[in-house]
Amino acid sequence: MISKKMKDFVANGSAIRAMFEEGNQMATVYGAENVCDFSLGNPNLPPPPAVKEAILQILNEEDPTELHGYMSNSGFADVREEVAQSINGKFGTDFSWENIVMTVGAAGGLNVVFKTFLNPGDQVIAFAPYFGEYKNYSISFDADFAMVPASIPSFQPNLEEFERMLNPKTKMVIINTPCNPTGVIYTEETIVKLAEILNRKQKEFGTDIYLISDEPYRELVYGDIQVPYVTKYYDNTIVAYSYSKSLSLAGERIGYLVIPDAVADYEMVSAAANIATRLLGYVNAPSLMQKTVARCLNAQIDIDYYDRNRQALYNGLTEMGYECTYPDGAFYLWMKSPIEDDKKFVDMAKKYQVLLVPGTFFGCPGYARIAYCVLPRTIEVAMPKFEALMKEIKGQAG
Amino acid sequence: MISKKMKDFVANGSAIRAMFEEGNQMATVYGAENVCDFSLGNPNLPPPPAVKEAILQILNEEDPTELHGYMSNSGFADVREEVAQSINGKFGTDFSWENIVMTVGAAGGLNVVFKTFLNPGDQVIAFAPYFGEYKNYSISFDADFAMVPASIPSFQPNLEEFERMLNPKTKMVIINTPCNPTGVIYTEETIVKLAEILNRKQKEFGTDIYLISDEPYRELVYGDIQVPYVTKYYDNTIVAYSYSKSLSLAGERIGYLVIPDAVADYEMVSAAANIATRLLGYVNAPSLMQKTVARCLNAQIDIDYYDRNRQALYNGLTEMGYECTYPDGAFYLWMKSPIEDDKKFVDMAKKYQVLLVPGTFFGCPGYARIAYCVLPRTIEVAMPKFEALMKEIKGQAG
Repeated sequence: MISKKMKDFVANGSAIRAMFEEGNQMATVYGAENVCDFSLGNPNLPPPPAVKEAILQILNEEDPTELHGYMSNSGFADVREEVAQSINGKFGTDFSWENIVMTVGAAGGLNVVFKTFLNPGDQVIAFAPYFGEYKNYSISFDADFAMVPASIPSFQPNLEEFERMLNPKTKMVIINTPCNPTGVIYTEETIVKLAEILNRKQKEFGTDIYLISDEPYRELVYGDIQVPYVTKYYDNTIVAYSYSKSLSLAGERIGYLVIPDAVADYEMVSAAANIATRLLGYVNAPSLMQKTVARCLNAQIDIDYYDRNRQALYNGLTEMGYECTYPDGAFYLWMKSPIEDDKKFVDMAKKYQVLLVPGTFFGCPGYARIAYCVLPRTIEVAMPKFEALMKEIKGQAG
Repeated sequence: MISKKMKDFVANGSAIRAMFEEGNQMATVYGAENVCDFSLGNPNLPPPPAVKEAILQILNEEDPTELHGYMSNSGFADVREEVAQSINGKFGTDFSWENIVMTVGAAGGLNVVFKTFLNPGDQVIAFAPYFGEYKNYSISFDADFAMVPASIPSFQPNLEEFERMLNPKTKMVIINTPCNPTGVIYTEETIVKLAEILNRKQKEFGTDIYLISDEPYRELVYGDIQVPYVTKYYDNTIVAYSYSKSLSLAGERIGYLVIPDAVADYEMVSAAANIATRLLGYVNAPSLMQKTVARCLNAQIDIDYYDRNRQALYNGLTEMGYECTYPDGAFYLWMKSPIEDDKKFVDMAKKYQVLLVPGTFFGCPGYARIAYCVLPRTIEVAMPKFEALMKEIKGQAG
C-alpha cells in the first residue's frame, strides 16, 4: 500500500489526468485538427539551432568520460562560472561559480530549496494566482502553505494582505514573474515594496525570510519591459531558473539556482543545497545539458512566434467581449470567466472542443488560463468557437 | 537558517568532503601520478561508441520540439516499451511499457520509490555492508532505517538475522546485487530463501513488504555468473536500474524503475510513482538520454578493462597477505582491514597516498572498499605502496 500522503495526491491527480484523457477522446471523435487544446504549457517551438550545434561540438571536442561522468553535485565548475558571468553581464550582479548550483530544471531547483530550508510546520507563502506545484511541494515537505489572495485587476501581488499574513513561522515566499498563469510582470515598484516589507518583518520577528524567485519565463517578455533582477533588491533572495522555455528544453531538465553571498547563512545554505541535490536523488543536473546550455547563454527561441499568438488571441477575444489581462510575458493569457463559476465555464468551452484550465486550479476562481504555445492555426480554428461560446453565454444571461 | 535535518547532513557531509580535499592536496604535494585514489565509484571508461552514434542519429532524425519537450512524467511511451521488451528478451519476463518508469538514474528511481511507499516511522531494511545513501534517504523521508549485520565471510545476506528483524512496520527491504561495496552477487538460493521469508512474514503480519532491487551493477559481472532477476522470485519486487555504469553515463542521470503488475496495489503504486516523479521535481527523466539509451539497449562498456583491474588488484593484494573477498561483479574490491580499526587503517594508507573508504561507512567496520574504476597504472603504482603498508603493519604487530 502506498503512503497516506501519496493516496491524496493520486486521488487529486486523477482529476487532471481525466481532463487530458478527455482531450484525447475529443480528438478521436472530432478530429485532432478541430480540438483546440490550450491547457498545457509545453513549448511548441524547437530549440534554437545553437542547441544542436553545441551538442555536436561538445561530442566532438570534449573527453567523453568526463563529459558523461559524475562531477560535483552542484555541477561542472566551468559551467557554473560561465552561467555566473552571463548573469553578471546581463544584470550587473557580481556572482561567481560558487553562487550557482546547476539543477534538474526549476522544479528540481525549487525542491532543493524546499529541502534545504523547511522544517515541518514552517510556512511557505505564494501570491494567487500561483503555479499549483508550490502548494504540492509544500505538502510534500510537511510545510504550511498560505496563499495571498489576488489583487484584481492588476494581478500584481497584494502587498497589504501579504504584510498581514507574515508571521514568525514564515520561512519562504515564492514569486513567479513573468507569472504563470497571468503573464503579468511584477514592476520594480512592487519588488521594492516587497523587499521593504520583508526586511521590516525579518527585523520584527528576528527571523530569516527567504524570497524564492521562480523564473522559467524570464526571457519570454514582449516589448521593452524590464523584469527586475530580484537579488538586487533583497538580500535573502534565491533565484530558480530553467532553460525549459527560453531554449525549449523542457524535457531535458536543466536549470540553476542562484544563491548569493548576501543570503543569510550563505555557507550553510550553499553546503545544504549541494547535499540536497544528492539526497533528493538528482545527484547532479544532466551533464551533457549542463555543457550545452553553457554554450547557448545568448541563444533564445523565436519569441516573435509567441508574440503573434498573444496578439491574435488577446485582440480576437477582447473584441468578442471577453475580459483578458494583457500579458507582458510568459505564454499564457488570463481571462475573466464570463460566468461566475470558472469550472462550469471551462466545461462549456469543452463542448466547443476548446480546452482551458480553470482559475480555481491556480487559487483564483472566476478566471481561466489559455496557454498559447500552440500552432497559429489552433487560434484561427478556436476563434469562431469562442464566439459561439460567448453567444451561448449571452443568450443564457438574456 | 537551514532546516534541522539538513544541519545534521551538512555536519556529516563535511567529513567526506574533507577526505576529497585531502586527496586533492596530496596531488599537489606528491604529484597526481603518485596519488592512488581508490575512493570513488566514478566510471573511468568512456561510453561505448553506440552512445555517440545514437545521439547523432536522434538529432538528425527526430522532431526537435518533441525530442526536447515534456512527455508523460513516466517517460516516452516508445522508450518504455523498448526497455520492457529488452528486459523480457534477456530475463524471460512479461513486462509492457506500463511497467516501466524512466527515472533520473537509480538514485532518482529510489527516491520515487521511497516517496511512493513511506509513511513517517515505516521501517526500511538493508543488508550490511550497504550503500550509505539507503540510510540517508530513509532519514530524508522520516523512515526508520534498520541494518541486518553482515554475514562474514560470504557477504551473502544474513537471512536468519533478517527474519528476526522483520516486523509489522517493515515496508521496504533493499538489496543491491552485484553489491556495492563487496562485489558479491547474491545467489539464486539466497533470493529464493529471501522471497520465502518475505512471503511468510507478509502473511503473518497481513502487510505488504516491498523488495527493492537496486541494480546499477547488473551488467558488471565477470565470467559466467548469473544475477537472478528478482521479480521472478517475489511478487512485491520493484527494480531500480541505472545506465550509469553499464553505459558510463553516470552524469547523465538516466535509469528506470520496473513496477510489475504482480506488485500489491499495482494501479495505485504505478499512479503514485508517476506523480512522485513530478512532485520530487524530476518531472521526467532527461528526454534526449531516454531516447539515447533506447537505441543502446545491447551496448555495453568494455568490461574486460575492469576485469583486468580486478585480477591485478585481487591477485596482487592477496599475495601480500591482504584478505579480500573475490568480487564477481561491480568494480569494488572488499578488503579485510589488517588491523581492527578500519578508519585507522585507511588513515595509515593515506600516508602512502593510497585513498580507500573505511567499511564503517557501509555499516561494516573492520573492512575497506577499493574502487577499481581506475587507470591500470594507478594499480601498478599502488602495489609497492600496499606492500610497504603491510610491512609497516606487520612490523607494528611484531
